This record gives sequence, structure tokens and C-alpha cells, in this order.
Amino acid sequence: MSQPDTDKIISAIQSVIHPQKEGAVALHEPCFNGNEWQYVKDCIDSTWVSYVGKYVDRFEEMLADYTGARKAVAVVNGTAALQIALKVAGVISGNEVIIPALTFVATANAVIHCGAIPHFVDSEEKTLGLDPLKLKDYLKEIAIIDANGCKNKKTGNRITAVIPMHTFGHPVELDALSAVCEEYKLIMIEDAAESLGSFYKGKHTGNWGKLSILSFNGNKTITTGGGGAIITNDEDLGKLAKHLTTTAKIPHRWEFSHDHIGYNYRLPNINAAIGCAQMEQLPGFLEKKRALSTRYQKAFQTIKGIRFYTEPSNSKSNYWLNVLLLDKADIKQRDDILERTNDAGILTRPAWILLNKLHMFKNCPAADLSIAQDLEFRLINIPSSVTL
Amino acid sequence: MSQPDTDKIISAIQSVIHPQKEGAVALHEPCFNGNEWQYVKDCIDSTWVSYVGKYVDRFEEMLADYTGARKAVAVVNGTAALQIALKVAGVISGNEVIIPALTFVATANAVIHCGAIPHFVDSEEKTLGLDPLKLKDYLKEIAIIDANGCKNKKTGNRITAVIPMHTFGHPVELDALSAVCEEYKLIMIEDAAESLGSFYKGKHTGNWGKLSILSFNGNKTITTGGGGAIITNDEDLGKLAKHLTTTAKIPHRWEFSHDHIGYNYRLPNINAAIGCAQMEQLPGFLEKKRALSTRYQKAFQTIKGIRFYTEPSNSKSNYWLNVLLLDKADIKQRDDILERTNDAGILTRPAWILLNKLHMFKNCPAADLSIAQDLEFRLINIPSSVTL
Repeated sequence: MSQPDTDKIISAIQSVIHPQKEGAVALHEPCFNGNEWQYVKDCIDSTWVSYVGKYVDRFEEMLADYTGARKAVAVVNGTAALQIALKVAGVISGNEVIIPALTFVATANAVIHCGAIPHFVDSEEKTLGLDPLKLKDYLKEIAIIDANGCKNKKTGNRITAVIPMHTFGHPVELDALSAVCEEYKLIMIEDAAESLGSFYKGKHTGNWGKLSILSFNGNKTITTGGGGAIITNDEDLGKLAKHLTTTAKIPHRWEFSHDHIGYNYRLPNINAAIGCAQMEQLPGFLEKKRALSTRYQKAFQTIKGIRFYTEPSNSKSNYWLNVLLLDKADIKQRDDILERTNDAGILTRPAWILLNKLHMFKNCPAADLSIAQDLEFRLINIPSSVTL
Repeated sequence: MSQPDTDKIISAIQSVIHPQKEGAVALHEPCFNGNEWQYVKDCIDSTWVSYVGKYVDRFEEMLADYTGARKAVAVVNGTAALQIALKVAGVISGNEVIIPALTFVATANAVIHCGAIPHFVDSEEKTLGLDPLKLKDYLKEIAIIDANGCKNKKTGNRITAVIPMHTFGHPVELDALSAVCEEYKLIMIEDAAESLGSFYKGKHTGNWGKLSILSFNGNKTITTGGGGAIITNDEDLGKLAKHLTTTAKIPHRWEFSHDHIGYNYRLPNINAAIGCAQMEQLPGFLEKKRALSTRYQKAFQTIKGIRFYTEPSNSKSNYWLNVLLLDKADIKQRDDILERTNDAGILTRPAWILLNKLHMFKNCPAADLSIAQDLEFRLINIPSSVTL
């Protein structure tokens, strides 16, 4: 394993993205070349910008159609979607929820927002996501199954759910993970925030979890400004999610009555209007992103000490954020590349700091995290916009 | 007290609003006659629709300038704003928070979302909001003050905050309430969701609470599609609120580190763009709403058994939703008016069902609520749009 040459890395990226004159090249900027304008104007002209309006319904239908899930519920963002998905799945205060340590902080925050406890497990290099074999071995060691489900022998808490996250759009091994969840009576909820347009064995991610979530943040493959969705094949849970995210109001011509503690998490119609226009362009976006990843792959073929990460087997990835992996975990080398690419106007970023290292989560239960730790110091994201 | 004649009520409303040919007259629909279009187009053209962008900063400055508060933090909606305001003010799990029973369910939900317990107290007819005298007498009976603050003698819980809500835009008696809060070491947080543009003793509502919240839902005086804000004169708390609502990320060129359990509650730039355009029109909106209320007042002068509610003394109200009050609490008469006005295409609605009656809040502590109960059966909201 030789140390890669930072100059060569910069040149390789530049050869792919052909940086234009001024300004930095973003990691992922949105592309509005469709009907965004027309649909937003329709909203403003009709004054239906808020919670009533046809675009929310249409956006939900488009999401369900595209992903193949029975029901989609549009909400303000992915964090809110995950909180409600957990709640609807039955996760309650004091439960432990298994999540990767290598994920965006929102995965853990949503667990905490439910009153539950994140329990960190390791990732694998093959998918950059949860390692099903390691999870199985770990559960064998720490968990017992009784009539009520799965219990952590060490803490005494119930373990109720597992949230695999499809890192940078690359699907985890969903079949193997589903088997582990079934064996240990755990509910799987897919954090598909990054994987709209990513398929596992020909089926869209988000269809293995009891419920799953998507994100349409400004840096995602499609954006609604800010937004997210819950998708599910369980219509009753989907209806409940819709009800809870819309203040749990009982429909009535004028009466204001509510039958649950509700949330104000619905996506405004104006944001859904942008979402509809973006969904129309999704297939084109995915083609462009795949072509970009192919160009990167070629450009990095001859560079030693680093490789361009490609989709796991059995999967077709959206290549949301393209990934370089240093052969050797070396934070100094990684930071040198980050510093010099950013200085050169090529925005790059490392993996998230492993969540178990943040002081808020330091006392949360955690398995061996050696692979995640290795990946944290090896991983670099490079510019991935549709427009490149 | 005579029973009002429903036909006369319908005629009086019609004489004011001059209903146009087709379609029902909404309770409160938005008005987009300003720069909404231009600012939204600017967002889409620049691709800055999401969390980075100039309109969020500008909207927050406009809110702070207009209300006179030192700091405004734009968020996804009023419920999220109230949850974070409570959290930042120090309300913790198991605390009791005093709120009116006569309010929208979001006030209580936000308390629950903090892990705290809503404690319902009565309203007064003069302001339609919390009755400071009755609150004082009630606290004398149930509360003790010790070194750590205020404690409920009956439940043993800490009572930490009071949330007055400015019902339909009409300010509560803020001076008297502030005095009670000071005496009982309670933090006041104003739920000013409905009172943007309402002033108490010449100062904008929201300046008495340690923190206060606004809402820009589609039915409010101004709208951002969905949105809200925290306002405060405490800059440190304002900064903390901004930090917590933006995932508590520590600023860094590329590193993803976070120092608190955070929330994804920031308002997208595209919604803030609409907010900027709406704020520019706010003075004009308020003039029109005041003129409408004057017309209603005249039209109802001669109708017996019902009166048009006018702003409390010391206050200048935004007349967000205009209010009729039956002389006598009579749910049958109220529902007859609601039914017949709605049938006639004039959208009207009653007060919210008192929150203590909803099954989720049935076991929450509650004071005598006789005035709120009386108001629930007497109150009817009538069309109040700027465009009328």
C-alpha cells in the first residue's frame, strides 16, 4: 500500500469535472431544469402554498409509484420521517435501537427524539453500511429472545429496531440483514435518506423495512428545499404516519378534535410542487450521476493508494455522493487531501465523525466498531452534482 | 339575553364580505401580491432553495426588526418553535408547563414533545387568553416556592413555565401575567403564533416572554407555506435556539461534528423567500384586516344575542381571525350557526375543543376551567382574509 499523491488526485478530479472559471465546485448542488417554476407559480397563483393542495398528494403518489412502496407520506425532512417511522413501528422510550456508528447524526437524533437509545454497531467495507454477519455474532453475544422480543442482557433494555442506512446511496445487504432481524424479532426501518434511485436485487431500497424514510434536503439527488418522506408497504402504518404528522386531527367540517399526540411535520404544498418537478427528472438525474461515477472510476484507475468506490454486488446505486477510499487509514493524509482539494475550489469532505465519539452518545451501548473506524479515516467524498 | 337569529347573522356577514359568485369564502386565505414570485424565482434560478441562502437571514432580520426582538430564528413551523423555545428555556422531562385549555392542540403537543406535562388553566373573556388573577389565586392554592423554583404541592412536580397564547391575535394581559410569573419563579414563553402584528401597550407581543414563537402557517396573517420562528431578547438563548434547530453542527470547512442532540427544524430558503415578500406587505395586510373588523363591528351592532369581539384595552390586535361571541353558551345554537353559514359557503368554525377534554390530556392537571368552557360554546370565527 503506497501513499497516494494529492496532486494526482486533484488532477484526476479536475479531469472529470472540468471546473469552470469562478467559484468552487459543490459536493452536490440541485438542478432545476424541469417544471419547478411552473408548479411553484401554480401554487402561488392559486394561493395553495401550505398544507392543502394537490402537489402533496401528487408527490406522495409519485414517490410510491417510483419506489414500489404502497404508501408514501411527505414530511418536512428525513429526521422527522425517521422519528415518526420509529414511533409508528412501536419503538418506545427506553428501547434500544441498533444503528451504524458511521452515519449522519440525524439517524441517532431521531432515535433520541423517540426517547429511545442508539446502540452502535459496525459497518462493512463492501457496502459502507451495517455488517449483517457481525451484527448476528454480536446479537448472539449480548441479546436474548423471549416472549416479548429481544432484550439486551447487559443493559436489561429491550432492543426493538435496527436502522440500516444506505451510505452515500449504496444499498446494504438487505436480505442478510432482514434474516438477522427476523431471527432476533427486530423491526427493520431503512434509513434510505441518501438512496432514492438505489436498487437492491432489482427492487428499490426502502422496501425491506417495515417502514423506511427518504430525504429531499438541498444536497440530495432530488430536493424540495427541505423535505422527507416515510414509505411503507403496510397501509395501516402509512395511514397512521400520515395522521400523526398532520396533528392527528379527526376530519370534520369545522370541529377541531384530535385523537393522538400529533406532530406538525407535513410538507407544505409549495415544497411538494418542487418535489413533483424533481421526480419527473429523476431518471435523467440518475443517468447523469452514473455516467459521472464511470468517469471518476476511469480517472482513478491508475492512481495508487486510493480507489474509487463502486456499488456493491446485487445493487444498482444512485451514486449520490461519490466516494474515494484511501488504501490505508491515515487521518493526516486524508486531511491533506481534504485541505488541498478544498483550497483548490473542489469541495470534498470526509466521513462523519463516528457517532459514538460525540459526547452526547458516548454512554450509548456500542459493539466493536473497528471497520467503521477504519473507514472514517479512509473515506473522502468528491463532487457529485447532476450538473457535472 | 335573547337568542340571535341565524338568518340575520348570515346577512350581516354577507353584507361585509360581498361574497363573489362561486366557491366558499375561506376563513383566512393568503394573499400574494408582492415580491413572492420574484424572490422564489431568484431562489430556484440560483439553486439556493434549501438551508443555505440569503432569504433565511433576511427573513430573520425582518422579523427581529418588526417585532423589536433582538433575535429571530426561522424554523419549519410554530410547533417546532415552541418545542425548542421550551427546551432552550430549560424545561425538562417531567416538568409541568401551564397553558390555557382554550388553545390549538399544538401548544400542548409542544409541551409533550419536550417530555413535559401540560397543566391547564382558565381563560378570561376580556382577552380570550390566560386570566392572570385566576392563575395567581390558583398558584397560591397548589404551588409552593422553594430554592429551586415552583413546585406543585399536589403532584410533586416542578412547574417551570407558563405559555400564554394570544388567541386569534388578541394579546393577553402581559404585564399582569409577567408579575405572576415573577412571583412564582416561572418562565414565560409567549405563544404568539396568531399574533404577528399585535401590540400590547405599544410593544409587539412576544417581547414579554423569555422566548416567544410565531407561526407562518397558510392560514396565518403572513405565510411561508409552512413556517414559524422563535423570537427572543436574550441573544445567547437565540443563538442556542439557532444552533439546536440546525442539527447543532460545529462550523468547520468539512468536518461533521455536533455538540448537542440537535433538530432539523430550520426553514428552507425558498420558504423564507416567500416570508420576506410577505413581511414587506404586513403593514398593508394589517390595515385591511383592521378595516374588515370595523365593518364587521358595525354590521353586528344591531343584532341581538351575539356580539363582535373587539380588541382588549391596552392592545392593538391584528384581528387575525374575527370572533363572534354568543351572549349565552348554547352549543345547539352555535352549531346551527356553524352549519348554516358553512352550508351557505361562508366558512366559519368554533373554538377548539378544550384540550383537557381530549383523551391524550385527560389525566393532565387542570384548574377550574369554567370561563374557557363557557367560551368554547359561545365562540364562532368568521371569514377574515386580507382579500375580503
